[in-house]
Amino acid sequence: MTATRRRGDRSRRSRDRGVKVIQKLERRIPYYDLFEEDGLDLIELHADRILAEVGIEIWGDEVTIELFRDAGATVDGQRLRFDPGLVTDIVKRTTPGQFVQHSRDPERSVTIGGDHTVFAPGYGMPFVRDLDRGRRYGTMADLEDLVKINHTLEWTHHSGLVICEPTDVAVNKRHLDMLALHFRHSTKPPLGAITAPERALDSIEMARIVFGAEHLDDHCVIMANINVNSPLVYDGAVTKVIRHYAAAGQGMVICPFILGGAMGPVTPAGAVAQAHAEAMVGVALTQLVRPGAPAIYGNFLTTMSLRSGAPTFGTPEAGLAYFAVGQLARRLGIPLRCGGSFTSSKLPDAQAASESATSLSTAMMSGANFVLHAAGWLEGGLVMDYEKLVLDNDRLGMTHVLLRGMALDENAFAMDGFHEVGPGSHFLGSAHTLANYEHAYYEATFGDAVSWEQWHEEGEMDARQRANADWKARLANHESPPMAAGVDEALTEFVDRRKASMEDAWY
Amino acid sequence: MTATRRRGDRSRRSRDRGVKVIQKLERRIPYYDLFEEDGLDLIELHADRILAEVGIEIWGDEVTIELFRDAGATVDGQRLRFDPGLVTDIVKRTTPGQFVQHSRDPERSVTIGGDHTVFAPGYGMPFVRDLDRGRRYGTMADLEDLVKINHTLEWTHHSGLVICEPTDVAVNKRHLDMLALHFRHSTKPPLGAITAPERALDSIEMARIVFGAEHLDDHCVIMANINVNSPLVYDGAVTKVIRHYAAAGQGMVICPFILGGAMGPVTPAGAVAQAHAEAMVGVALTQLVRPGAPAIYGNFLTTMSLRSGAPTFGTPEAGLAYFAVGQLARRLGIPLRCGGSFTSSKLPDAQAASESATSLSTAMMSGANFVLHAAGWLEGGLVMDYEKLVLDNDRLGMTHVLLRGMALDENAFAMDGFHEVGPGSHFLGSAHTLANYEHAYYEATFGDAVSWEQWHEEGEMDARQRANADWKARLANHESPPMAAGVDEALTEFVDRRKASMEDAWY
Repeated sequence: MTATRRRGDRSRRSRDRGVKVIQKLERRIPYYDLFEEDGLDLIELHADRILAEVGIEIWGDEVTIELFRDAGATVDGQRLRFDPGLVTDIVKRTTPGQFVQHSRDPERSVTIGGDHTVFAPGYGMPFVRDLDRGRRYGTMADLEDLVKINHTLEWTHHSGLVICEPTDVAVNKRHLDMLALHFRHSTKPPLGAITAPERALDSIEMARIVFGAEHLDDHCVIMANINVNSPLVYDGAVTKVIRHYAAAGQGMVICPFILGGAMGPVTPAGAVAQAHAEAMVGVALTQLVRPGAPAIYGNFLTTMSLRSGAPTFGTPEAGLAYFAVGQLARRLGIPLRCGGSFTSSKLPDAQAASESATSLSTAMMSGANFVLHAAGWLEGGLVMDYEKLVLDNDRLGMTHVLLRGMALDENAFAMDGFHEVGPGSHFLGSAHTLANYEHAYYEATFGDAVSWEQWHEEGEMDARQRANADWKARLANHESPPMAAGVDEALTEFVDRRKASMEDAWY
Repeated sequence: MTATRRRGDRSRRSRDRGVKVIQKLERRIPYYDLFEEDGLDLIELHADRILAEVGIEIWGDEVTIELFRDAGATVDGQRLRFDPGLVTDIVKRTTPGQFVQHSRDPERSVTIGGDHTVFAPGYGMPFVRDLDRGRRYGTMADLEDLVKINHTLEWTHHSGLVICEPTDVAVNKRHLDMLALHFRHSTKPPLGAITAPERALDSIEMARIVFGAEHLDDHCVIMANINVNSPLVYDGAVTKVIRHYAAAGQGMVICPFILGGAMGPVTPAGAVAQAHAEAMVGVALTQLVRPGAPAIYGNFLTTMSLRSGAPTFGTPEAGLAYFAVGQLARRLGIPLRCGGSFTSSKLPDAQAASESATSLSTAMMSGANFVLHAAGWLEGGLVMDYEKLVLDNDRLGMTHVLLRGMALDENAFAMDGFHEVGPGSHFLGSAHTLANYEHAYYEATFGDAVSWEQWHEEGEMDARQRANADWKARLANHESPPMAAGVDEALTEFVDRRKASMEDAWY
C-alpha cells in the first residue's frame, strides 16, 4: 500500500494545473567507456593499495570502528586498513543495484540506479541571486520559493533539500523548517539533513509522520547525501549520520569531496583511485549496518585554478574523471551520483552555461544515476540563481531526449517521405513531416530561434532575462499538492516541539 | 621541399611574439558508439535504398553525369540511380583515410582524418557583432581583423575563408581579396572559394602562386567546402567546383545541408540515411575525377523550431545524428566533417554557450576530424561575433585536453603522495603536487574562478566583457607572418588583373 493511494492524492491531480507530470529518464543509449578493462583493473588496484597501505581514519565513532573490525579491517587507533578486495566484497555482496525512493504521489516516485537517472536541484548555497534583487543571503522565504519553482520544473525529479541555506533560521533548527517546506510544497522526493546525527534522526522522524512508520521501515522515502572528509577521513558525525539512515533502511549518498591538488592528488588517476576507495568504505558501512540498505556511490571530484586556488568546474580533467568513475560504479553494480550543472561563474552567463553544459554532458555519458546540483548552481556552489534554475531545467529536458536515443524503425527512415518529396523539393508540408513533426524535436524553452528583427522588436532579451519571466510565472502558478488529513498538523507539532527543546545555535 | 623551408619562414618564428604555436589535436580517447553494427547496417541499407529507388539529380553538368554513367549509374535525364553498394565501393576504393593540408609554415600544416581533429573558425556570416559596435554588415576590414585574431588563437588550426562576408566588395570579386588576406595575415591553412567554378579556379591559382605549381600538384595546400543542394540534388555549379578542386588534388569537403523537416525528414534516422547517401555521391565524384584526391565526408544536419521554422542548434536530435554519422564515416574509413560551436542565440549569452558546448561535445564524441564553425558562430550562422570567437577558442582548448585522455602511470596514481599526505591533511604543498601542478590542469582564459569580492572590485565583468578585452589584445599583438620575396607582389598582381577583367556583380 502506498502512502499516496492511502491518502487519495491522485484524485486531485487534475487540480494540479500548470504543473506537467515529469517525465522519467530511462537511458536507452550506451555508456561511454573511457578505459578498457585493464585500465579499470589498474585504478581498482591503486584504490586497494590506498586502503591497505595508507588506510582510512574514522574520527570519534567507536561503533563504526567496531563494525569494520568485525568485518576484517586492521584497526590501529582511529586508522583502519583493509586487505585488498575486502571493502569491494562487502559492497558487492548486498548493495542493491537500484532502488525506488517513494513519493506520496506514486507518479513522482523515482528509481535510482540501473539505466535510470534522477535530477535534483542545487544544494547548500548560502547565497541566492536573481536579476531583480541581486546577490544576497538566502532565507527561508527564498527556500520556499525555490521548492515551489522546482516542483513545477518538468525535468527535475527530486526536491533535494538545501536549495538555498535559509540563513535567517538558527543552524540547529533550520532542517526542521526546511524539510517541512519540502513535504508541504512538493511531492518530488526530498533529501534529509546530515549536519548532525540528531538532525538525521529528526528527518527520518518527519518522514515517518508523512509516510507512516510501517511504510518507512521497508520503503526508502527519504535519502541523504554526506561528503567524505577527504582525504581518507570519515568524521564521526558523518558516520553516525550514515548509520542512522542505513539503520532505517533509507538511502545514503556517499560522496568523496575532492578538489585535485587540495583534498587529493592533482593528477586525475590518483584522485579517482582515492575517490573510489573513500566511496566504497562509506557504502560498505551502510551494508554493515543493514545489509541491502539503499546506497549510492557518489563523486564530487573537480579541479582548481592554479592562479587562485579556487575550485573550477566543467573542466576536461573533471570530465575524464567522471567517465572513469562511471565505469567503476558499473563494475560494482551500484547506483552512481556524479556531475551537476557546475560552474564557478558569478552570473548565468556564457561561462556558466559552457561549464554547466560540459559538466552535465560528461556526467550523462558516464552514466550518472543521481545528479545533485543539476539546476541553479552558480559561483562554485555559493549561489543559487533563480534564472539559472530554470535555464538548467531546459538543458535537462534536452538531456532526456538525448538519452532516449534514436529510433531506427520504418517510420523513422521515412522512405515514403523520400518517394513523396524526391530530389529538389522540400519536406515542409509532406505527409511524413505532418505525421511526425509534433513529437519530432524537443522544443527548448529558452532556445530563442526567432529572426533578429522579431527578437529586436521584442526587446533584445538575452537568455537570463527570458528566464526571469519564466520562474516568476512558475512561482505564480504553483499549487501545493494537498496532504492527507492530519499530516500537516502532525508535522507542525513535531517541528514546534523540537524547536522549543533547543536554544538557537548559529554555527 | 616544402614552401616554408624554401622561403625561410622558420628562422623568423622567434619574431612571432604573442602567438603561441598551436597544439595539434590527436585523439587518445575512444569514440562514442551509439549503435551496434546491425543499427549501422540498417542506416546504410536505407541510404542505398534512397540512391537506388529515388536517386540523386545533377543539374546542369553533363561531365559529372557522364562520369557517374561510366561508373555504373543508371541515368534518366538528370536523375541518377545507383545499385546498392555501388557508391560505397567507389568511395572506399581510393579515398584517403587521412591527408595533410600543408601550410607554408610546416608547423602549421594540419592532418585531417584518422585520430586527428582540426578546428576552423565560423564561415559565411553576412553580419558581424561585437560589444562596442553592435550588429552590422561585415566588411573586408572586419575580415582582416578576424583573420588576424584567428591567427593568434591557440586552439584553432585552420584559417577557414569567409570568417565574415566582406559585403563592401562585389560578390564576384571578394574571393580574391579574401584569400589574399588569409595568405598575408595567417599561416593557418585556408579554404578556397566555392561560389562559382571560376572562383574555385582563381583560388587554386592563388595557391599555386604561394606554394608553386609543382608543389601544389602533389600536395594539398588548399581545401574547399561545398554544401549539397539537399534533398538529393547537386547543382552543376557545385559539381564543377568539386571537379576543379579534385582535379588539382586539393581537398574537398562534401557537406549535405539538412534541416530536418525542410531539406530532409523530421525523423533523425531518415535524415542521417539521406545525408550518408548525399555525402557519398559527392565524395565518389572526387574519386572519379582523380582517384586518391583528398575528400572529407561532411555533415550539417540539424533541427528546426516547430514554432518558427527557424533552424535550431545544439539540440539532442542533432547530437544523436552526429554520433551516427561518426560511426558511418569510420566504417567508410574516411575523414569526417561534423559539428561546430552552433547556436541560434542573438548574443554570446547562456543560450549560445549552452548550445555551442553541447554541439561541440557531441561532435567530439562522434569523432569529427574537421570542425568548421568551431568558433564565433552566432544567430544560426548569420553573425560572426568577435567576443564569441575567443570564448569558443577557450572551449576548444578544453577539448584538446579532454581528447588527450587520462594518464594511468605511476606518477598519475600518486602513491608517494598518499603516503606523504595521509588521511586528514591536504595535498596543497605536497611534493607530488609541487612536481605536477604546473601542467596538471587546463587553465581557462575566461573561466573566472576568483572570489566574488575580487570579481566585484574588478567591475563585475561577465564572460562577454572579458572576451572583449581579449580579442582587442590579440588584434593589437598580431604580426603577419612574413612571405617569401615576390609572393605578395605576385598575389597582388593576380588579384588586380582578375578584378580588372570583371564588372562588379552584387548578387
